[in-house]
This record gives sequence, C-alpha cells and structure tokens, in this order.
Amino acid sequence: MTLPATDTSRAPLPVALCEALSARLGERFSTSLAMREHHGRDESLYDPLPPDAVAFANDQDDIVAILRLCHQHRVPVIPYGSGSSLEGHLLAVNGGLSLDVSRMDQVIDFVPEDLSITVQPGITRKALNEYLRASGLFFPIDPGADASIGGMCATRASGTNAVRYGTMRENVLALTAILADGRVVKTGSRAKKSSAGYDLARLFIGSEGTLGVISEITLKLHPQPEATCAAVCSFASVEGAVQTVIETIQLGIPVARAELVDALAIQAMNRYFKLTLHETPTLFLEFHGNEHSVAEQAASVQELADGNGGSGFQWATRQEERNRLWSARHNALFAFLQLKPGCRASSTDVCVPISRLAECVLGTQEDLRQSSLPAPIFGHVGDGNFHVCLLLDPNDPAEVAESERMNRLIVQRALAAGGTCSGEHGIGLHKIGYLLEEHGEVAVDVMRAIKHTLDPHNLMNPGKIFSFQA
Amino acid sequence: MTLPATDTSRAPLPVALCEALSARLGERFSTSLAMREHHGRDESLYDPLPPDAVAFANDQDDIVAILRLCHQHRVPVIPYGSGSSLEGHLLAVNGGLSLDVSRMDQVIDFVPEDLSITVQPGITRKALNEYLRASGLFFPIDPGADASIGGMCATRASGTNAVRYGTMRENVLALTAILADGRVVKTGSRAKKSSAGYDLARLFIGSEGTLGVISEITLKLHPQPEATCAAVCSFASVEGAVQTVIETIQLGIPVARAELVDALAIQAMNRYFKLTLHETPTLFLEFHGNEHSVAEQAASVQELADGNGGSGFQWATRQEERNRLWSARHNALFAFLQLKPGCRASSTDVCVPISRLAECVLGTQEDLRQSSLPAPIFGHVGDGNFHVCLLLDPNDPAEVAESERMNRLIVQRALAAGGTCSGEHGIGLHKIGYLLEEHGEVAVDVMRAIKHTLDPHNLMNPGKIFSFQA
Repeated sequence: MTLPATDTSRAPLPVALCEALSARLGERFSTSLAMREHHGRDESLYDPLPPDAVAFANDQDDIVAILRLCHQHRVPVIPYGSGSSLEGHLLAVNGGLSLDVSRMDQVIDFVPEDLSITVQPGITRKALNEYLRASGLFFPIDPGADASIGGMCATRASGTNAVRYGTMRENVLALTAILADGRVVKTGSRAKKSSAGYDLARLFIGSEGTLGVISEITLKLHPQPEATCAAVCSFASVEGAVQTVIETIQLGIPVARAELVDALAIQAMNRYFKLTLHETPTLFLEFHGNEHSVAEQAASVQELADGNGGSGFQWATRQEERNRLWSARHNALFAFLQLKPGCRASSTDVCVPISRLAECVLGTQEDLRQSSLPAPIFGHVGDGNFHVCLLLDPNDPAEVAESERMNRLIVQRALAAGGTCSGEHGIGLHKIGYLLEEHGEVAVDVMRAIKHTLDPHNLMNPGKIFSFQA
Repeated sequence: MTLPATDTSRAPLPVALCEALSARLGERFSTSLAMREHHGRDESLYDPLPPDAVAFANDQDDIVAILRLCHQHRVPVIPYGSGSSLEGHLLAVNGGLSLDVSRMDQVIDFVPEDLSITVQPGITRKALNEYLRASGLFFPIDPGADASIGGMCATRASGTNAVRYGTMRENVLALTAILADGRVVKTGSRAKKSSAGYDLARLFIGSEGTLGVISEITLKLHPQPEATCAAVCSFASVEGAVQTVIETIQLGIPVARAELVDALAIQAMNRYFKLTLHETPTLFLEFHGNEHSVAEQAASVQELADGNGGSGFQWATRQEERNRLWSARHNALFAFLQLKPGCRASSTDVCVPISRLAECVLGTQEDLRQSSLPAPIFGHVGDGNFHVCLLLDPNDPAEVAESERMNRLIVQRALAAGGTCSGEHGIGLHKIGYLLEEHGEVAVDVMRAIKHTLDPHNLMNPGKIFSFQA
C-alpha cells in the first residue's frame, strides 16, 4: 500500500550520533539493511519504510542516553516493542532511529497481595502470563498478537476479555516515560486509585510513542478464575446475537468474553477446521467464576439466547471441550486467509455504542455485498467493537483502493452512530483523517498543543496520530 | 485555617466585564457579598476567600460566553458545582469570577441499552440515581457529599463502591470541556472503548477546574443488583481485618463495599447511635449479585474472617436489616463530631497498596496516640484508601498546626509505602507540596507545561494543584 507523503529531503544520520551510539551500545546499534527493514514495518499493508538505524536498549539508562543523543542531533526516534501494530505505527516517515525495547523484558517487582506487578516494556503478554501461572493471578488484556506490554500501553490495546476486565486504560496503575529530551517522568503510583494531579499515565497510554518512550509499567492483575465455562450459540440474525449480549450485560451477568462471528466467517472456519457449525451469526462466550456461578451464568445466557432466536447452545467447563469450542475463534484468521489464496488481511476496528451495533454490522454486510473483497466479520460484541477482515492482494492497487473505500464507509457509519474509528488498534498513519473527523479540529489542536509542549522538535514517532509541524 | 499567599495587589473586576455579564445573565450575575461568600468556601478548614462576583450558567452557551468575556479581560474563573470539595478548591486566591453550573442539572440523553447517560455537570449523584431508579440501572460512585457530577469529574472522585465499580476515571465515556478562551473540546465518544488519539477525557478528569469547565458528561451506568447483602464483622486487630479483605479480593469475590472502621470510630458510633458493636477494628461489607451469589459471597468472606480473628459476623439481605447494619457507617461523621464538642473535622485521604495498608493504619494509630486530637479512622479498605478524621477547633492555631503535622506524617508514610497523598479528594490548595513530593519535579513540570499550553494566562482556577506563573 502506498505511503503517505514522507520527508525525502532529510539528511542521513549524523556521523557524530552514530559514533556516540556505537560507543555506548556496541553491537546493539545497527545500520544493517536487514535490521532496518525488520524495524520499518508492522502488520499493516503499508510498504516498509525503514529507519536509518536501530538501537536496542537494555535498561532505562540506555533509553535516556539514546533519547538525549537523538535530541541533541534532532533525530527522530520510533519506539519498537514487538512489531505487531496494525496502522503503520512503526514506519520511519521522517527517518531516524528505531529504539527497540524488546530486550527489556524483565519483571521488576511482583506483589501478589496487591494484585499488581511492575514490568519492563518489552515483556510480552504471553510471557507475563507464563510468569504469573503459578501465582493464581493473570493479566487479562489479550490483543490478537503476542504484543509487548509497552506497545499495548502505547496503543491502548484491549482484546476479547475487555468486556469484563477493561482495556489498558483501566489496567495500568503507574508508568515511567522518558521524554524526547531524556527527562524521566514518573506517573501514577502503586495505589489502586489516586486523585493527585493530572492523570499523566492515561496521557501516555494511547500516545503511540509520540510523547515519549515507556520504560516501566505497573499493571493491575486479576485472580485466575476458579472455574471457566465456554459456550457457542448460533443465531438466525445478527440482531438476535447482539440483543442477547445487551440483555446479558443489562442483567449484570459478568460475561468474560462475548465474540460475534458472522456467517461468512463461520463458513471459512468450518471449511478450514473441518467443523460443522451452523453457518449463521454465532456467539462465542466465556464465563469466569466458581463451578456453580459459571454454570448459572451459562444457563442464564442460554435462556436469553432462546428468546432471541438462538439455537444449538453448547457449553463446556472441561479444558479440552472449551478449547474445542473456542480454538476455531482464536485461530480464525488462518481460516479467513484461505477464502482468497495469497491474500493479506486488512482489519477495520470501529467501536460503537452497543445499541447501534446490530445496525452497524448489518449495514456493513450490505455494503460488503456490493464489494469485490471477501470480508468476514468478527467482533468483541460486548464492547461494541467489531473487525471487518478485508481480504485483498496488497499489490493490486484496485483492491487496496476498494479496501480503503470499505474502511471509509465503515468508519463513517460508526462515527454517525456516536462511535470511534478505532476501538483498540490506534491511529498510526492510517487513520489520521478519521481522528480529525471523530474528534473535531479543536480536540486535535489540543492534542497537537500537548505534543508541542512535550516534544517541540517533533522527534518522538513523528507523523503518527495527527499531522504536526515542529 | 490561614490561607496560602494570595494576590492582594489585584484590581477589582473591570466595569466593562461586569456590564457585559449583567447584560447577558441579568440576575444570574451577582456581586452581593452573601453570594460571593457562599461561593468562596468549601468543606475544608480554610477561611473563606470570596470571588469578586458569581455567575450562574444555564447552558453550555452561557459557559462559552462567560469564559470568552473573562478571557478578554484576563479575569480568573473558578468553576463551582455543589461546593462540597475538601481541599480549598473553590477559594478565590487570585479573585475573579465563580462560575456556578449547579442550575445545569438536566439529563441530556439516556440510552438504557448502552448502559450510558449524558448529563449536564450540575446534576448531583443522588438526583442522577433518583432519575435512574425505575430503569434498573444506577451510577455507583458515591463520595460522602451529594456532589455534582461535574465536580466529581474535576476531582476524580470515588467512594465506598469503588472497590467493585471503579472511580470517576473508569466511569466516564466522554465529556465536553470549555477552555479558558471559550473553545469547545469534545473528548471520547459513546463507544465503550476507544484508542483514537490522546485520552483527553482522562486529562480533564482530576484537573480540578484548572484546564477548563466541564459542560457535559457521558457516564457508564451499571445494572442495579438483583440482590444485596450487607455484613458487619469485628476483628481482634487491624491486620486481621485488612488480611480478610486482601484474601477476599485475591479469591475474586466481587465485594461491592469493604469499609474498615477503627476501634475509636466504633466507640463514637456506639455512643451516638446507641449501638452495641464490639469496640475493635470492624469491617462493614456489602455484596451485590443475585440471591444465591450474595449469600455465597457472604459465606465465603465469613470463612476468611474466621481465619483472621474475625468474630460476630452478622449479615442481612433484607433492606431494613441492611440499613440497620450500615446506617451507622454512612452517618459516622455525626458520631465522630460528638467526640469533641464544637469541633470540625479535617479528613486525611491517603491511599496505599493494600499490602501496606495494615502497617500504615497501625503506624498512624501509633502517631495519633502521641497527638492531642481525637481522630477516628475509616477507610475504603479494598482500595487501600483510608481517612483519618482529625477533630479540632479551627480557630485554635495550635490545634490547626497539630492537624497539619498529623496530615504530614500520614502522607509521608503513605508515600514511603508507594502510595498517594490523595485517594479521592484531590489536591486543591492543601496538598500542593505533597503533589510535588509524590510525583517529583519533572512530572509536575509536565503538568505545568500542559496547563500553560491550554491556559497561558492562568485564568482557570489559578493557584490550585501546583504553583504556576502565567
């Protein structure tokens, strides 16, 4: 996919900067093409745009030193976690240095009694949960990829568990960020709540690397559920499925996961995983609690589903059976990609008030019937967030244009319904125009003013979220 | 209590401004002493410091017009909700205008299916819940006073339900704020989550009127519990009570309220309400769910309490019995004030990681034994937030000094334990020094930089949260 306008007039990295970084980092500073290309791409459809160099930080002092040097030389810095972002966040549109924190993957402090843990930004969500396995606690936020916790903060990530456990916004107690000039900002505290001053932690969460580099994060943890119950149910209509989830939430049933998968997606999953699911809109559900309460939750939701045209409600509490019910949903992308051999997927990410979700999904399906692209839909329906998985040949300009046209229709419908252009993927390069449509000129000007006051030379991940001139 | 340094050199309000405000607002603009004195105080111990005038807004257009006029004349504006803040937030240290939004108390849009409601800032939490009574939904955030929703946003308020339902931080979807120059900023959306740009809503929540006036708020609502169970249990020690709550949370029991009340507080309550509670540390608990689950929760916590030296566990699900158990806790302040006839109460507000709570309460009790002031303790123990209710004669400088000395000891202990100087009351005038101790120079400089970029003339509630020069 073609990139937005980039700064092609820029100079190469200053020799003095390269020497200083080499002196400090040794082999952890690299200008090799392979390394740069690896760091100049993400999971979006954009063609890669490599940085001029890559630096690996081993600790916070490295980050401070690297930022100070880059600040002195006015060289942009793009923080890099695991490379799994989806909207072009990592592309070096103004060149500069990719600052890779993936080696900063340690647990700094774990206090089980507080249900909190302090980690370095490079630890991934799966590694974190591996660390926590024996503790009886877990960290619930689960974007599709095995993202780094620092990156998940930067994009305000969420996932399938958010309906019960919230997003990164609700699950970070404190973080440390390094500003463009190397100053160290400590935000929040280990206390569970605070009303002491501006909420700087929340400002960095979702700032996509444009305000600073996150170097340390204190997370809230949750007790591993004593019992888990998975369920699957088919519906005659999208409305029936969505209405079941609305009623579930209104009754206060603490559903942990509620995923809507549309008929086309089920077709793809049946074919790929050799399943025999009804090829109609389907809910995948999960309940957390104790043995009694998960059974009670499942029975209550089954009753609601019955009243909304649900059929074939299956549920299971044993791990193997649960996996059988849910593994197709977790691995759905592989099935979708088979719908169009050689394709790649571009995922939309709107989120709307749940009262408007059914109409948005139905309107989208109507639009998709006029489109040449196959596009299964799945969504975190309890939050009103759904993804249209547009399947296209990224080298075919007509298909890319069609994918962008569909994305625009979907975003515009979501905004008209009082929703957001991005539920959990962020803005990056891809949705800069939509951000403006969503929030309006004044709000984006306020964002720019904050950016300007903290990063006046526009060095931190420049060109992302909004257009900005230093 | 003596005020911090104020700007005594300031000029009276410009005649042109008064004329313009009178022309627009008629009798809703007032310079009467009674009106000004009413608006120049809050529930803190500070002597009142009246603004130069008071203006009542009827709608957002009024707020915009008033702010534009004040901006043009460089006159400070202090937003005013219900006057129940606790740290000197409303005192006109630089003079100026009190902008009273209490008449903007309407519901703008209520969508039960979304579990959300959009309101004007002047509606109080009790009026809101009265509005919601028949809907099956409620808004759980319950600071002691019947505060306005706008004020609760401004101070990032919470209360007894926060352990289960979160604070204002977690329960605002979107808000509109008017900047010092009259620009209208729309933040967030009605979608339950979003990763579209900087989290400006969270920036205004807790900004104490220093960045703008909140004119509209979209709140998350929660289902009214099908069943509620209240419980009370006495403990041999503070540690036993705290440990019971830690274990409750670690087991994932979704306790809705968990309040610790110390022995002195129980003594006061026994005397005032003619009760016969054991005069030892006591937990007041509340569970929300269905009939079965609240009984199960209560039974589980009783078992945990038994293992931690708890005794006399009583619980009740019928409304009258629940009220009997909890009404003394809800009205405890009246009992406390009787411990020292003619006194006023000054409440500390630290919040610490729950693993450090018992030692902080015990250390505080030890300090209090050396103090001349009676000071019962109660706290939202599930969050690690506790209040020491220092009882003093506000006209006796020695007692005021002793109260400040105790507050300092308590804050310093909390900060040493990784906590915060303010769990839910905010900074106002009173804790400016503690904010700096808690977050450090760089973080407070970042707050100042944000303030400067949005309010360069220092017109919005000047002198609060941090020292700042325009």
